[in-house]
Amino acid sequence: MRIVQKFGGTSVGSLERIQKTADIVQAELARGVQIAVVVSAMSGETNRLVAMANEMSEQPAARELDALVATGEQVTAALLAIELQKRGVVAYSYSGGQAGFVTSADHARARIKSVESSHLLRHMQAGEVPVVTGFQGVDEKGSVTTLGRGGSDTSAVALAVAVEADACDIYTDVDGIYTTDPRMVPKAQKMERISYEEMLEFASLGAKVLQTRSVELAMRFQMPIHLRSSFDPVVGTMVVGEDETMERAAISGVAYNRDEAKITIMGIPDQPGIAANVFGPIAEAGVNVDVIVQNVSEQGYTDITFTVPRSDYEQTMGIMRMLCEQMQGRDVKGDDTVAKVSVIGVGMRSHAGVAKMMFDTLAKEGVNIQMITTSEIKITVVIEEKYIELAVRSLHSAFGLDLSPPA
Amino acid sequence: MRIVQKFGGTSVGSLERIQKTADIVQAELARGVQIAVVVSAMSGETNRLVAMANEMSEQPAARELDALVATGEQVTAALLAIELQKRGVVAYSYSGGQAGFVTSADHARARIKSVESSHLLRHMQAGEVPVVTGFQGVDEKGSVTTLGRGGSDTSAVALAVAVEADACDIYTDVDGIYTTDPRMVPKAQKMERISYEEMLEFASLGAKVLQTRSVELAMRFQMPIHLRSSFDPVVGTMVVGEDETMERAAISGVAYNRDEAKITIMGIPDQPGIAANVFGPIAEAGVNVDVIVQNVSEQGYTDITFTVPRSDYEQTMGIMRMLCEQMQGRDVKGDDTVAKVSVIGVGMRSHAGVAKMMFDTLAKEGVNIQMITTSEIKITVVIEEKYIELAVRSLHSAFGLDLSPPA
Repeated sequence: MRIVQKFGGTSVGSLERIQKTADIVQAELARGVQIAVVVSAMSGETNRLVAMANEMSEQPAARELDALVATGEQVTAALLAIELQKRGVVAYSYSGGQAGFVTSADHARARIKSVESSHLLRHMQAGEVPVVTGFQGVDEKGSVTTLGRGGSDTSAVALAVAVEADACDIYTDVDGIYTTDPRMVPKAQKMERISYEEMLEFASLGAKVLQTRSVELAMRFQMPIHLRSSFDPVVGTMVVGEDETMERAAISGVAYNRDEAKITIMGIPDQPGIAANVFGPIAEAGVNVDVIVQNVSEQGYTDITFTVPRSDYEQTMGIMRMLCEQMQGRDVKGDDTVAKVSVIGVGMRSHAGVAKMMFDTLAKEGVNIQMITTSEIKITVVIEEKYIELAVRSLHSAFGLDLSPPA
Repeated sequence: MRIVQKFGGTSVGSLERIQKTADIVQAELARGVQIAVVVSAMSGETNRLVAMANEMSEQPAARELDALVATGEQVTAALLAIELQKRGVVAYSYSGGQAGFVTSADHARARIKSVESSHLLRHMQAGEVPVVTGFQGVDEKGSVTTLGRGGSDTSAVALAVAVEADACDIYTDVDGIYTTDPRMVPKAQKMERISYEEMLEFASLGAKVLQTRSVELAMRFQMPIHLRSSFDPVVGTMVVGEDETMERAAISGVAYNRDEAKITIMGIPDQPGIAANVFGPIAEAGVNVDVIVQNVSEQGYTDITFTVPRSDYEQTMGIMRMLCEQMQGRDVKGDDTVAKVSVIGVGMRSHAGVAKMMFDTLAKEGVNIQMITTSEIKITVVIEEKYIELAVRSLHSAFGLDLSPPA
């Protein structure tokens, strides 16, 4: 058995937490597992370093910012190696470059090009533990690069692929993926398994436990991810290929996001390129547009509705009002009290009637659907925010996800 | 003109100080000088990192401690590069390994084996500024190594040699080397030039402005060091080869050290190997012995006197009492209120009578000499501590070092 373990910022957020992390490493070693560890910076450290750079310059050079923040993980890796050595475990820290991570030269958002980690594999096979800095590598000139926030998950999966690990265990502060938010729905169940595709949909819906890139990479190489808690030794959720997931109900979970605002620009000319005209200026302003719906046009005019994060609502409304005037549109309307709810499941592909059951369920509860979008394994609706709990609970129950009382 | 500038911990001790450092770099660039910069960790940072490691483990693994503390300089280098870029100077930070410093694998006290810095030289020739972390490199396996405390001076000199610089400017919090301590002797003069040999003697006497290793390296490659202040733009002291120093008086300066204790072990058998018997256990205890004098023996017995740092006095007395019993010696005596004063000068070689003048001067002032040792360019005496100011001032004056009143 060979495993790459990844510990995030809160799991290594203090010297005491690093000791707990060493406990976990040691326990797995004692089971005879070959281990490599990937660590993030101690929580808060990256922000501290970035703050110094920003105090120095409003636009710190990207190459230097990477060299600066990369020290955060290097500190964690050395401290964990020291702790493991103290316990008699042979451990060595490796920076991204030392561990063989070669990336593109796009500072702050580098892509991993290759991982030459045969030296780490030799350590693992000898029962030794390489402790690798996540989130970073070097480009082909040897300059330090970072993968962007959350890139440590991607580092861990890439290393797991490189050393042909049996799984990549990602330790975090939650103990798995639930069928929906357990704080909202007490009957939510922890999933034993979830497919990569479903995980991607959950991730895009704000279940920020796993970075999308890391799931994509794991999917490409069929590397199982075990998402689990560093605070609680229970088994977490396995993220695996679809063929490994058990046959089951059409829907595996219900996700939601309250942080939504809806904007409609009405009566603009229905011409090729109109969407680019609308969304170009929003993208330039750095606003992420989420759901987009364009109604069927009438008499050469069309309406476009989309959602943005609530914090970007005012700015986006301003841009839209300006555009509407330029394009001689009819009006711009907005609503920043909407929310989004999705049902997700690979089973949806083969089960007819998921959409019908979703819409029926919401209708029965008197919840009006404002927008609908669908993907192959997800249906999302935008509704009034005040109905969100009602919608999530009724869907969770309607799709048979509620925890059964113990037999 | 090509110069390697080195800035120590206090010169980069805050973001504000890093800005001042950038001022200095920019000013030299504006004069058309090709510049590479070597930086230390921000003052206090190395201690902070070591404290974390020590909290983790009483004996942190040396390889990991090096990887950990090396991040200190990396932070400074990136921040200075960011500051320079902000000002329109093209600058790049380099870790020791990236800059081409290959060292021995002796962690925490690595020796530089080679510096392959042609890429840095190309930057310099293009008017760009490489900012290199001092104090560190990588061994042949690519593990991060450090040169030991103060090793940044050595890094700077080694880089200056590698890029064939005209000089290595070492910026610190003093503005040069003085003929003696100006706080004790207001008539002390800043030296314009000092030879490597003299600098080594001053350094060994606690003038901690330049690390001995860096001076030895500069001497071997005849690399001029300009020791100057980062707080005050005045010209400092040039440390150069002897042939470049002007002809001058026999003595270039008077150094002293109060932190001395004297121990005498009396009436021990005068046999071959006796010194090893005495000093072996002291070395094992990690105590640095300084001046050693063995009196002429009488009737098969001898006395050995030596000095140690005052903080090691009690421990060393304990060891000596034990040894004295084992060797059936007569007695052990100690005195922890002694001090050391030295006159230093390459001119001493060709000028007779330096020793005579030194002893005469002290005798005239009623200062009793307890021990004497000499090297080729230095005479050191141990005296009662209470006479130290009197001794230093009278010697400074007697050897013609007092600052003349302006003409």
